Amino acid sequence: MLQTKPQDRLSAALAPELEQVNDLIRSRMASRHAPRIPEVSAHLIEAGGKRIRPMLTLAAAKMCGYDGPYHVHLAATVEFIHTATLLHDDVVDESRQRRGRPTANLLWDNKSSVLVGDYLFARSFQLMVEPGSLPVLGILSNAAATIAEGEVLQLTAASNLATDADTYLQIVRGKTAALFAAATESGGVIAGASEAQVDALRTYGDALGIAFQMADDLIDWTPSETTGKGFGDDFRERKMTLAVIRALETADDDERAFWTRTIGKGNQTDDDLETALAILDRRGALESVREDALGYAARAKEALTALPDHELRDMLRDLADFVVERIA
Amino acid sequence: MLQTKPQDRLSAALAPELEQVNDLIRSRMASRHAPRIPEVSAHLIEAGGKRIRPMLTLAAAKMCGYDGPYHVHLAATVEFIHTATLLHDDVVDESRQRRGRPTANLLWDNKSSVLVGDYLFARSFQLMVEPGSLPVLGILSNAAATIAEGEVLQLTAASNLATDADTYLQIVRGKTAALFAAATESGGVIAGASEAQVDALRTYGDALGIAFQMADDLIDWTPSETTGKGFGDDFRERKMTLAVIRALETADDDERAFWTRTIGKGNQTDDDLETALAILDRRGALESVREDALGYAARAKEALTALPDHELRDMLRDLADFVVERIA
Repeated sequence: MLQTKPQDRLSAALAPELEQVNDLIRSRMASRHAPRIPEVSAHLIEAGGKRIRPMLTLAAAKMCGYDGPYHVHLAATVEFIHTATLLHDDVVDESRQRRGRPTANLLWDNKSSVLVGDYLFARSFQLMVEPGSLPVLGILSNAAATIAEGEVLQLTAASNLATDADTYLQIVRGKTAALFAAATESGGVIAGASEAQVDALRTYGDALGIAFQMADDLIDWTPSETTGKGFGDDFRERKMTLAVIRALETADDDERAFWTRTIGKGNQTDDDLETALAILDRRGALESVREDALGYAARAKEALTALPDHELRDMLRDLADFVVERIA
Repeated sequence: MLQTKPQDRLSAALAPELEQVNDLIRSRMASRHAPRIPEVSAHLIEAGGKRIRPMLTLAAAKMCGYDGPYHVHLAATVEFIHTATLLHDDVVDESRQRRGRPTANLLWDNKSSVLVGDYLFARSFQLMVEPGSLPVLGILSNAAATIAEGEVLQLTAASNLATDADTYLQIVRGKTAALFAAATESGGVIAGASEAQVDALRTYGDALGIAFQMADDLIDWTPSETTGKGFGDDFRERKMTLAVIRALETADDDERAFWTRTIGKGNQTDDDLETALAILDRRGALESVREDALGYAARAKEALTALPDHELRDMLRDLADFVVERIA
């Protein structure tokens, strides 16, 4: 029997709510005066993102017994924040492709991406105010700050060999885990879940996000046509991902000189990627990151035990396995 | 006797609160992990902006009898939103100077300006949540959306001869009036002012902002070394300001051809600015905008009559005169 992916099972179980989220997103990205806004937004939002973050919010709320309307608002909020971030990311990274299509900055221009991103941020704040829950507003506005701080940190950490594991974790939280955690936590809070359950939901989202991002960074070091990511992209972009940070901790003089030249100074030749991989392997850096990622996935699953027995909980558990499946 | 500017009198009357606002801004733009953030923010925030928006919030709250601490949070919030907007504006406009200093996008790069702007937006939302007032959150998040929408509108309206006066007003609200109105209105709401007073404060801020921006756009058509703005900048940047919109409404064929070539197609020669000015003058466009700006200043002052008799109210009244003084 073919095993369905957990995100597809979540999508099926949450189909009516997801439809409401999509309707809300569509109505809120409209602009009576500036048609450029829905054009740019729709290009990205309709491009077939997996809606993981809204599903996390919906699942968390439903699992905790929520039967009101506002988990839909919060789910749309996190998707708007995510989309705004992608628009700005693509400007900052000068990306040309996203979700298999040309980026908005390429189709329109950087200006449109910056300003439409700002509009979606503002819309997300309008949306999150509507449920009228101050604790939820605290959670989501804190997440927005962590995301933005992580982005700046990523910018300044690139090619900086002094970047440590703590900084890497902050960047990963900014890129992925902070919004995952805010998505699950706010779902629990709007449902009136107990403090212990809310803590568990936050821990789940945070650990899931870290596991996902660590696995994603590790895949970048995997020479394969099937992963869908370009082998060695991070190395070429001189990103300080955790494997390199670990390898630097025990580097000998030659290795340190190698990283200084290739990542610190950006002076790379064709053979360097293979050399880099050999060093990471020799220093056990890839294996160490792999173990960390699996550890975070396990922590995510462990947190779920504090939550009510529910088919959605089982799907979230399987989702934690799924995000590290490619490296397990 | 030398007449002191109303903003200087406001600054003196609000000195202790402004000091608290500055302290709060300084503490909230810090980032433990990413020192780039306070570097970029401080470059702009410490550059001697006039703090008009925070003063509007403080004055509105104080005038309505507020004696709590949260007008300081709201004042810092509006300054953060303003600063974030400036950072993104300078990227979008490719500006090289702001407040007499090189722009952040020039000193660092566009990436830093985009991401630090995002950080300040997120920080502003954290700050506005702290007073725990849902009505205030509605006001400020709506203003943020109007600002962002206005920015996109300005981008798409440039060089578009079909831009009408209604669109111009939306752009002006986005650029200036929406945040002015949110600044005064939120000050009244946090002070627990009556609905009539809150309405009056919103009307004052909105009309003041429109009067200020209309006057600013008009100054652009004034050939003088003393205005501090470059004569004809908007024309060269093909902006559809109100004077051009008005002149187009009654344009003959030759004039329409002129505007189509110079603003629509951006095909300008050295003599065109003078020709443009002659057309605007012939069509009474400058005079008509001037009357509108003075009308909005009068409307701002009229709104203040609904508010308590207070020295701060008198300063706000004088401020409405001051923003149109250059064109009166």
